Amino acid sequence: MFSTTGSRLSARSGILDLMDDLGRAMTTDPGMRMLGGGNPAHIPAVDAVWRHRMTELMADGDALERMLGNYDPPRGNPHFLNALANCLRDALGWRLTAENLAVTAGGQTAFFYLFNLLAGTMPDGTRRRILLPLVPEYIGYANQGVGPDLFIGCPAMIENLPDHEFKYRVDFAAVEQAMEAGDTGAICVSRPTNPTGNVLTDDEIARLSLLAKEHGIPLIIDNAYGLPFPGAIFTEASPVWAEHIILTLSLSKLGLPGTRTGIVIAHPKITEAIAAMTSVTGLANTNTGQQLVLPLLQSGELLRLSREVIRPFYEERSRMALGWLRVAFAGQEGWSVHRSEGSFFLWLRLEGLPITTLELYERLKSRKVLVVPGEHFFFGLEHDWPHRHECVRLNYSGPADTVREALGIIAAEVAALRAGHSAA
Amino acid sequence: MFSTTGSRLSARSGILDLMDDLGRAMTTDPGMRMLGGGNPAHIPAVDAVWRHRMTELMADGDALERMLGNYDPPRGNPHFLNALANCLRDALGWRLTAENLAVTAGGQTAFFYLFNLLAGTMPDGTRRRILLPLVPEYIGYANQGVGPDLFIGCPAMIENLPDHEFKYRVDFAAVEQAMEAGDTGAICVSRPTNPTGNVLTDDEIARLSLLAKEHGIPLIIDNAYGLPFPGAIFTEASPVWAEHIILTLSLSKLGLPGTRTGIVIAHPKITEAIAAMTSVTGLANTNTGQQLVLPLLQSGELLRLSREVIRPFYEERSRMALGWLRVAFAGQEGWSVHRSEGSFFLWLRLEGLPITTLELYERLKSRKVLVVPGEHFFFGLEHDWPHRHECVRLNYSGPADTVREALGIIAAEVAALRAGHSAA
Repeated sequence: MFSTTGSRLSARSGILDLMDDLGRAMTTDPGMRMLGGGNPAHIPAVDAVWRHRMTELMADGDALERMLGNYDPPRGNPHFLNALANCLRDALGWRLTAENLAVTAGGQTAFFYLFNLLAGTMPDGTRRRILLPLVPEYIGYANQGVGPDLFIGCPAMIENLPDHEFKYRVDFAAVEQAMEAGDTGAICVSRPTNPTGNVLTDDEIARLSLLAKEHGIPLIIDNAYGLPFPGAIFTEASPVWAEHIILTLSLSKLGLPGTRTGIVIAHPKITEAIAAMTSVTGLANTNTGQQLVLPLLQSGELLRLSREVIRPFYEERSRMALGWLRVAFAGQEGWSVHRSEGSFFLWLRLEGLPITTLELYERLKSRKVLVVPGEHFFFGLEHDWPHRHECVRLNYSGPADTVREALGIIAAEVAALRAGHSAA
Repeated sequence: MFSTTGSRLSARSGILDLMDDLGRAMTTDPGMRMLGGGNPAHIPAVDAVWRHRMTELMADGDALERMLGNYDPPRGNPHFLNALANCLRDALGWRLTAENLAVTAGGQTAFFYLFNLLAGTMPDGTRRRILLPLVPEYIGYANQGVGPDLFIGCPAMIENLPDHEFKYRVDFAAVEQAMEAGDTGAICVSRPTNPTGNVLTDDEIARLSLLAKEHGIPLIIDNAYGLPFPGAIFTEASPVWAEHIILTLSLSKLGLPGTRTGIVIAHPKITEAIAAMTSVTGLANTNTGQQLVLPLLQSGELLRLSREVIRPFYEERSRMALGWLRVAFAGQEGWSVHRSEGSFFLWLRLEGLPITTLELYERLKSRKVLVVPGEHFFFGLEHDWPHRHECVRLNYSGPADTVREALGIIAAEVAALRAGHSAA
């Protein structure tokens, strides 16, 4: 009854389960301890900015009526695009104009467009794939192909660190070998990495950028959590952009996920294509996010907010969550956590767990703790990798007490499992 | 460099030109006389409702923060879905629940999902198409296929009426013949028809519904301008829904296009698929439109507003625009207009024009009048049809003086063209 593309895009998927869990917890099940999904924190000082902005908009003549009642061009609001181009030029020295920008209905939609633009069946009948140099990679990419086999992924190298920590590193030998197949349409990384909180080093990014450039293909960097906004990044990594780099930004992690606003920064040929795809698949973008943010881009306030409020908030939360995790798992062996360098997730590794993390997720859900099982983040791999069954993603952006309590429940459940019986 | 699907979805298209023209006129070129695009009117009493609702939301505890800062489930906000199901049950007696509903990022996105779900390459290798029983049909569908040849269209029969009017009728012989090919995945009509202002009669809908049911395929009815809201429909046509009918609604023509909110009403297997596609291609929907409308659905006020404010507004505007058109074209021959039964467009036919309407569009644009050339609305046809070069779509929802003035300029340009020289 459904087409092959329709069946593919409408299949049960990790991202559907994740968003359904998340949305229900946020709308109808407030008793759920929500460490799943990617909802950002309600940072009081940031929420206050958006409330103030909405008040300003409502007092500004017919600005509200224009925002709600008029279509913008498919590429985005021209004033917003100009303000953003100026902001990025001033803050980072990037030589770009509004022509290098396109707004989308959220970052997820930007990736749906980009992946299907740059990979899949080509006019000459060959097929191209998106190369993921560091798997595990973002769950939301996994099911986005209108055709089959969109991704080729390279397993991360695991560097074990002291004190129950580890860090993923790009296996460049594997990446270069994968590139030799000659069917790579683009290289794609998220930075900070969703789900792990990893931040690719400047050196890793430089090597990937050079590799892409040498092969005449784009390097896509998913910057939903990065610089210059929202700034949920705790290392001294430098933001980069160049003509062969496609950088995406999002307003979601600024506290505006309900507005669905993503941004693509790229060569004008790419942004033109994105604008055209927006018109065909959605007519235009939603206006609210752009209008709320506009004067903060013009004044530079958005960057100050990211630097002085959002980054410190998530960095402090990361520190706290790691502390609670250590307390909760004190005395246990076989657990470790990825070094927390950005985003707002802890990536917990549980070696030798007697069940998969899909099963652990179900058990925890029945105890009113939502996590995201790690299995869904391992895709595009050619060989099985037992590591895929031993990780969970934990969002620590929710209320502190909830996060601490949930981490305690997780540790207790794991201890009980290891002891050979359920604590339920 | 781009994939075949990417090239198709990012090609220059009628809908891209239309939305780009429209968006620019609404944001940066207020001097343009805007009869292009599909922006709804700013009806003062309706704009006031949305302003009041935003004020209410801001006064309602953390409702604003939840609207901006939380993801909803991919299917839509559960409270909104329940309120809409109740509203439709109460008003129209349809036996449906929230399971029959799914929200999308605007009606355009709903059609992108539906067409690619129900047509294209099937798992058994065969191909299916969407049958359009009454072409000209909505421009926005034309480029939505991820694969080629998505549509098979049947030319309308033209019934000439007195006083420079005509009406399109479904050619059922042609529709039944097209169905015999056996490759129809769904039948699709817009009602009121965009671009013509036609409203398919209850009898025409009943026959199409039966035909779809007999062939075990859905009938899709694009109800963006119809009943029970926004109610831009001036005949006594009855709204219909059944398990094999997929009905779409939109908040755009209620004056909320900037919120990008569409609704699919269908069998739960379809709405489940739509929700899954939303999660994969966009994570979740934008929340603003749903939250603004919610209490008006619960109280029934939205239906009263549609019946008592929106319908009379557009009906009066239609009458006025037709009057201005008659004055402007007084003394000219070779023009007629589709009977205005709904939506907010006049569909002007100019027989024997010495240029195509694509060229007419360019000339008018240089005189600061935007229209939509008719060529883009004729697609899926197997044979050439000279009628495609003689129609333009005129949006009469803008300020009255602007519409009247623009109609005068159009008539003068046409007269000058017919006289063999340009009035420019």
